[in-house]
Amino acid sequence: MAKGLTKRSEDYSQWYNELVKKADLAEHSAVRGCMVIKPYGFSIWEKMQAALDKMFKDTGHSNAYFPLFVPKSLFEAEEKNAEGFAKECAVVTHYRLKNDPDNKGKLMVDPEAKLEEELVVRPTSEAVIWSTYKNWIQSYRDLPLLINQWANVVRWEMRTRLFLRTAEFLWQEGHTAHATKGEAIAETRQMLEVYADFAEKFMAMPVIKGVKSESERFAGALDTYCIEGLMQDGKALQAGTSHFLGQNFAKAFDVKFAGKDGKEDYVWGTSWGVSTRLIGALIMAHSDDEGLVLPPKLAPIQVVIVPIFKGEEQLNEISTVALNLKEQLQKLDISVKFDNRDTSSPGWKFAEYELKGIPVRIAIGPRDLENGTVEIARRDTKEKQVMAIDSAVDHIQKLMTDIQENIYNKAFGFRKDNTTEVDSYDDFKKVLDTKAGFVMAHWDGTAETEDKIKEETKATIRCIPLDFKEEEGKCIYSGKPSKGRVVFARAY
Amino acid sequence: MAKGLTKRSEDYSQWYNELVKKADLAEHSAVRGCMVIKPYGFSIWEKMQAALDKMFKDTGHSNAYFPLFVPKSLFEAEEKNAEGFAKECAVVTHYRLKNDPDNKGKLMVDPEAKLEEELVVRPTSEAVIWSTYKNWIQSYRDLPLLINQWANVVRWEMRTRLFLRTAEFLWQEGHTAHATKGEAIAETRQMLEVYADFAEKFMAMPVIKGVKSESERFAGALDTYCIEGLMQDGKALQAGTSHFLGQNFAKAFDVKFAGKDGKEDYVWGTSWGVSTRLIGALIMAHSDDEGLVLPPKLAPIQVVIVPIFKGEEQLNEISTVALNLKEQLQKLDISVKFDNRDTSSPGWKFAEYELKGIPVRIAIGPRDLENGTVEIARRDTKEKQVMAIDSAVDHIQKLMTDIQENIYNKAFGFRKDNTTEVDSYDDFKKVLDTKAGFVMAHWDGTAETEDKIKEETKATIRCIPLDFKEEEGKCIYSGKPSKGRVVFARAY
Repeated sequence: MAKGLTKRSEDYSQWYNELVKKADLAEHSAVRGCMVIKPYGFSIWEKMQAALDKMFKDTGHSNAYFPLFVPKSLFEAEEKNAEGFAKECAVVTHYRLKNDPDNKGKLMVDPEAKLEEELVVRPTSEAVIWSTYKNWIQSYRDLPLLINQWANVVRWEMRTRLFLRTAEFLWQEGHTAHATKGEAIAETRQMLEVYADFAEKFMAMPVIKGVKSESERFAGALDTYCIEGLMQDGKALQAGTSHFLGQNFAKAFDVKFAGKDGKEDYVWGTSWGVSTRLIGALIMAHSDDEGLVLPPKLAPIQVVIVPIFKGEEQLNEISTVALNLKEQLQKLDISVKFDNRDTSSPGWKFAEYELKGIPVRIAIGPRDLENGTVEIARRDTKEKQVMAIDSAVDHIQKLMTDIQENIYNKAFGFRKDNTTEVDSYDDFKKVLDTKAGFVMAHWDGTAETEDKIKEETKATIRCIPLDFKEEEGKCIYSGKPSKGRVVFARAY
Repeated sequence: MAKGLTKRSEDYSQWYNELVKKADLAEHSAVRGCMVIKPYGFSIWEKMQAALDKMFKDTGHSNAYFPLFVPKSLFEAEEKNAEGFAKECAVVTHYRLKNDPDNKGKLMVDPEAKLEEELVVRPTSEAVIWSTYKNWIQSYRDLPLLINQWANVVRWEMRTRLFLRTAEFLWQEGHTAHATKGEAIAETRQMLEVYADFAEKFMAMPVIKGVKSESERFAGALDTYCIEGLMQDGKALQAGTSHFLGQNFAKAFDVKFAGKDGKEDYVWGTSWGVSTRLIGALIMAHSDDEGLVLPPKLAPIQVVIVPIFKGEEQLNEISTVALNLKEQLQKLDISVKFDNRDTSSPGWKFAEYELKGIPVRIAIGPRDLENGTVEIARRDTKEKQVMAIDSAVDHIQKLMTDIQENIYNKAFGFRKDNTTEVDSYDDFKKVLDTKAGFVMAHWDGTAETEDKIKEETKATIRCIPLDFKEEEGKCIYSGKPSKGRVVFARAY
């Protein structure tokens, strides 16, 4: 372990923090609570964005851009939403600095440039967007309105963790408007499916799809759907949410439309988002004690070629073979890096690319040249294989699929092994403390019981799963009747 | 003119404002000075982003993301930069709202949540980025550092105009660090070339490349290079800038590196940016009294097919032909919209797509079906042509190039006709008031003269052109000797 990463079994949390930094993904900035996303971390985000953006467009959505600032009067229009976010809002109160007369070379806020109305830095954009939709929607012909925005948002946080919880983060937020309740619910669920597909097919992370309990709902929504992933330490991570807003925002911002019959009604809304938090999920779902493990579909570099050489002549010979291989792979849309630097050793490079989670490593040395072979190592299983160079391209193309599937299957197996049905509160607590993971248990449906369980065990209801099975049972806490099991877990 | 656009000759400024709104590009928001970029406008920005991002990556740059907020102490570290932006900074002073006890349902800034140090919403990111680079750069091996960021920035503006001048805007900002002065200057000029290429090859807008005079320089730079375009009203528009920062930011943030010889030195820096302002430039450079004229390379939809039909049966027959054509064009990477709506007339659609600047319109009616023809209209020249459908695909592919070139050539011709050499201050003023455009005149090189001319005529030195020709002359204002002509204009 050249890179000296703490082992997951020793301290999972420290392993995560170290990995994020050592793999050059992100770091804390000089600005309290805000992160710098470094080029390698950002390139993973770019891959995520590209895949998601295509999925949004394929389902009929367009991108747009709305202001960063929300005037306080708009912000407070939808009361529940305002209440939910008020405590974590960065607020702009002034629009100018001036020279500080008492401190040469220093600046101070100019008291004469106080805003008449304070501006909230958006923690989410429902308010500013619905105040705009009011002017965009008059008739059923203007509906549905299917818009997405890629943006930064700010939610003031005292305790932050890179990617998982930061004051500023990057995300996308979809905001749609519909003529009927049914359409809005269908949209909410469609976007949940898009998120689940993305998580499973691109991130190789199995997720449970479900609905939040009332107390875990988005502030201002009638229903919050979510996808929940399981991290290797047995904690759950909410990876995306899709909200059915009912007519709440339409009423708060007076957004009405005339139907085909000429009757006016309030518009039905949805909103849905995923954020740079997904990078945290990706790391924690798959990576190991040697570093990142990236699914090929999101790996910025899918294949790295490391030459093993002494002297320039050998490097030149290997380069010819390597560049030819690189070209063939690129024709198949496989991204390849040929690391021909002579400033670091092959061993150092091996550790480095292991740390960075490059799915496939090819090593080519002088003996390979003689034998017409290459050594191919896969990051996920750490298997190495020497094979004829003529077979390498086909093999690697197949590996792209195999590795993607294997990572998914491994995570799926882990989740299966760490999903436990319990029927008593004692067992519930025992499982949480010894094994963690998802705990499937009966719940009486009340917020009171949910709160008590949370207070006593730190476990929350992650969701009522969409594949909820009706089953008579008794609430593990209150003993009252329950119609089926919900998903509990401790969570990020 | 179904859309009732003011003519450019009547009121250019109003024409612009109307066009931006009627073509669904952008609108003012409820937030003072901030705009909403509507889906159609944003899709132009997406095309620009894609092209620029590729150019940045092809020249070795990576994307990253740095915080929105700049603590005041960092912001003021580079004094000139701070001074330059202090008067237009949005400042976050509090991090929480609370219920207003005097106004039920209203919120107020929580005085107990006052930040110890105020946060400036980035007007540009040199400060926050160079404070980060300090930790990233130790040795010459860490250089060059070539990073770009796509982000929103805020510069408080009292008088705003959609795309051209708004409090918040979207942009990219490149920030690079180098071991030598020569490398940094080469980078600055390379990025200027990238911008000029983009303007000319994608936006079809000819630009003058040059260097700013000292008073027009970016605050904190040693040199500011720029590209200047000419709008149809004869005003100039600065479309992109690339700054050679010298060691200013390195010194302000103590960013040093150890050279190969072990000696420590400050790092050399550059920064460069273009913004959503380019959309304003694109509109004003090419569009006409019927609406937008978009160069094919940046048109979100390149071809629209409008069926001319009565009844469903005719529509079905036309659709078969249209969809076949669409498929063939899409195979050539030409984006096509088939507008088969029966809720608006062909005439309405023609006006709509003219307004939106779709480069090529295809109309197919019942007679075309009989004759095996289509009508092809190009937006730039408004020429229409009926041709055999078998030739349409080839013809349209060629049109993509022809239209792109024609738009460029037209703008180039306009600029040529509106670039005037003058040798006296009277002529200078006369040209500005009657013809406008770029005025090439001798200048004595002093800020004093520059200021006077600006004060008296509102014309500024746009740049000292890179293709500056040495030529003995006398300053039009002071009569003092001058070594060549610089570019004056009134500008956006």
